[in-house]
Parts: sequence; C-alpha cells; structure tokens
Amino acid sequence: MSNRLSEEGLDLLFRQARTHSAWLDKPVSDDTLKQLYDLMKWGPTSANCCPARILFLRTPEAKRRLLPALAPGNVDKTMAAPVTAIIAYDLKFYEQLPKLFPHTDARAWFANTPELAGITARRNSSLQGAYFMIAARALGLDCGPMSGFDNVMVDHEFFPADGETNAFQLEHFPDSHVKANFLCNLGYGDPTKLHARSPRLEFDEVCKLL
Amino acid sequence: MSNRLSEEGLDLLFRQARTHSAWLDKPVSDDTLKQLYDLMKWGPTSANCCPARILFLRTPEAKRRLLPALAPGNVDKTMAAPVTAIIAYDLKFYEQLPKLFPHTDARAWFANTPELAGITARRNSSLQGAYFMIAARALGLDCGPMSGFDNVMVDHEFFPADGETNAFQLEHFPDSHVKANFLCNLGYGDPTKLHARSPRLEFDEVCKLL
Repeated sequence: MSNRLSEEGLDLLFRQARTHSAWLDKPVSDDTLKQLYDLMKWGPTSANCCPARILFLRTPEAKRRLLPALAPGNVDKTMAAPVTAIIAYDLKFYEQLPKLFPHTDARAWFANTPELAGITARRNSSLQGAYFMIAARALGLDCGPMSGFDNVMVDHEFFPADGETNAFQLEHFPDSHVKANFLCNLGYGDPTKLHARSPRLEFDEVCKLL
Repeated sequence: MSNRLSEEGLDLLFRQARTHSAWLDKPVSDDTLKQLYDLMKWGPTSANCCPARILFLRTPEAKRRLLPALAPGNVDKTMAAPVTAIIAYDLKFYEQLPKLFPHTDARAWFANTPELAGITARRNSSLQGAYFMIAARALGLDCGPMSGFDNVMVDHEFFPADGETNAFQLEHFPDSHVKANFLCNLGYGDPTKLHARSPRLEFDEVCKLL
C-alpha cells in the first residue's frame, strides 16, 4: 500500500472537489449508497461511538416531507438531487457501546450524563458527516451539504417524540433520541453550473506552530 | 481526473487506516503540516465559514502546557507523538465572512445570534477536524484523535480570556473567542502496537432508504 495518496486522488477529494447545486440526469443506486456507508463507517469516532444515523431520501414523496423545513434557497436543488441524506445523530448512541467498545464499560461514561452525551453525539456525528462527504467523493459522487433548514420541523417530521409517532417511526426511532445534524444532497454535479470558487484562509490565519 | 478513488486510496484513507497510540521515531516536518492545511482547507463548510483554528504543539515545552489537562490515559501517547494538534474553533468566525463569502452579507446571519454562531462553529470545526484527519492520512501520516481532556483547562492555558492574557496570546487570540474542540496526535504510527480493530455498525443499523 502506497503511504501517500496520488495527486489525482488529492484533486478528487480536496483540491478540485466542489459543492454542487445542479445535477446531471444520472441516478444514484442503492448499491452506491451502501458502498458509501461501508467506507465512511471506518472513520474514527470517540470511543468508537459511531453516533451518526442517516436517512436517504430517494423518492419525490420522501423529499416532499422535507420541503416545508427547507430554507427557500435550498428547495429547488434538493428536489432536483437524486438523493438527499439527512445526517442525524442518536443521543442514545451509548446503548451500542457494549458492542462497539467492548473492552470497558464505556456506556457508563455517557448514560447518566446527557450533556456529555449530547456534545459527544454532535461532535462525532459531524466528524462522520465529513467522512460521508469524502467517501461520496471517493466514489465519484458530488455533494451539496446544507445547514439551511428548520431542525425542529425536520425532527418532528422524521424523528417525532412519543405520542406523535406513527408506526414506521416508532419501529425505527422509538422515542426521539435521534436528531438531525445537517442535510446533504448527493448526485453527479453539473460542472458547467459552478460559480467561481470562494477563497480560503491562509495557513498563518488559521494555524500556529508552537 | 478519474472519477473514483483507487482501491489503494480507499484502503489508505478508510479501510486500512487505524487510530494510533504508538509512534515510530520519525519526525513530522513543518512543511508537511503546511501541506496538511493546504488540503483540509478545501473541505466544505456552511457559507464557507471555515471556523477551525489549529495549534500544532511540536516541542516538549508546548506539550507540557497541555499535560495537566489530559486524561491520564492520553498522557504518554501525547508526549511520545511528534506533533499534537489542538483543533479549535473561532466563535467570531463571522468576522471573516466578508472575505470568505463575499456575495452577500453573511456576517449579519451570525454576528447578533451567538447561539447560532456557536452551533455553526462547533459543527463546522468538527467537519474540518475530520478533513484534517483524512488529509493527514492522504499525506501518509497517522492520527490519534482524543476527546479525553479538560476543555476549561485547555482554553484557559491556550486561549485565555481578557485580563488573563499574556502578550503572545493577546496578539493571536485577543479575547477568548477561540475554544478547543478536540486534540489529535500526528506522526507515523507503529503498526506492531495496534490491537484488533473494533467493530462497526451494519448499514441497516444506521441507514434507512426512504
């Protein structure tokens, strides 16, 4: 195994990769979504806690449930995208720790400390959201991540609380311990619709060598 | 440009990559740290807000300032690592938006909404922390990310508030709007010291196709 990624790979994942809003008429297969998960799952999380949960909205019906919660500027590109992912997190991720981190009782670190569990779920599901986007690019997909939506509306529609829960949601997310983090459109972007790239901060504006 | 990463690349970044705690006696050059930043900076953030700030602790003196804040299990591997990065975030990231997102007044979205600014800084600096680790692996480095530390102590030592600020810190981080997110050791890991890999959740435990 080479111990450095090729220049072509660095371009694909970082230097030439762009956020897309316009999509080619090319579907994303369920098999590709499974390949995506089977890459992103390997990214490191704290105590291997793996708190991310993902809904892949593939049909117009599923995406219409999302529309009322979207910022106006995110509606058209979301309806046009082959797939929209809701990257969410499970506040009760710690129930999986006996399996995921079996060498010690890591569940006890979080089960009675909801503030720590919340910080850990949000930080690590964001890390996993980034692994998701890099893995998508590694598979030739393009991403359009979005924070412009109403979290309360998305959580109410897709991860409702007890008493507001239909049968499907009761089965999958029984008591609203799953919360949306951000959204990400997936597909094959139309490079002719890209604008000029925005600048980035210089090394010396961000980093200090101590 | 190929539109899919090579199998070798997928192994390097995801499938064979491991979190390391034992390090080969091989330094990490400042030039490599600059290459790392020049890759990770391209990863997408909300409104291109780029809130991550990074301290690279390279010397025993710099790392000794961190030691009192570390969980006991993180001390030896941190002192042994060639570099320890403090991945932090700037709560006033929005002051850079006129440069980073010039087409609209994005600064106004955050400047008077500290709660939204905080959520945005934490989410996006975590995304950037993941880009940091993937970029490090792409350059042949290994990572040892850590959440086991006292945030208050790290912030007090490295990003102190007004009135507790020495000249160096006043210059770089004038009023404690920079906060630590997580730590990451960097170096070339010793593969003979790795334990068996922990399991991951299956696709159907994490993802739903709607």
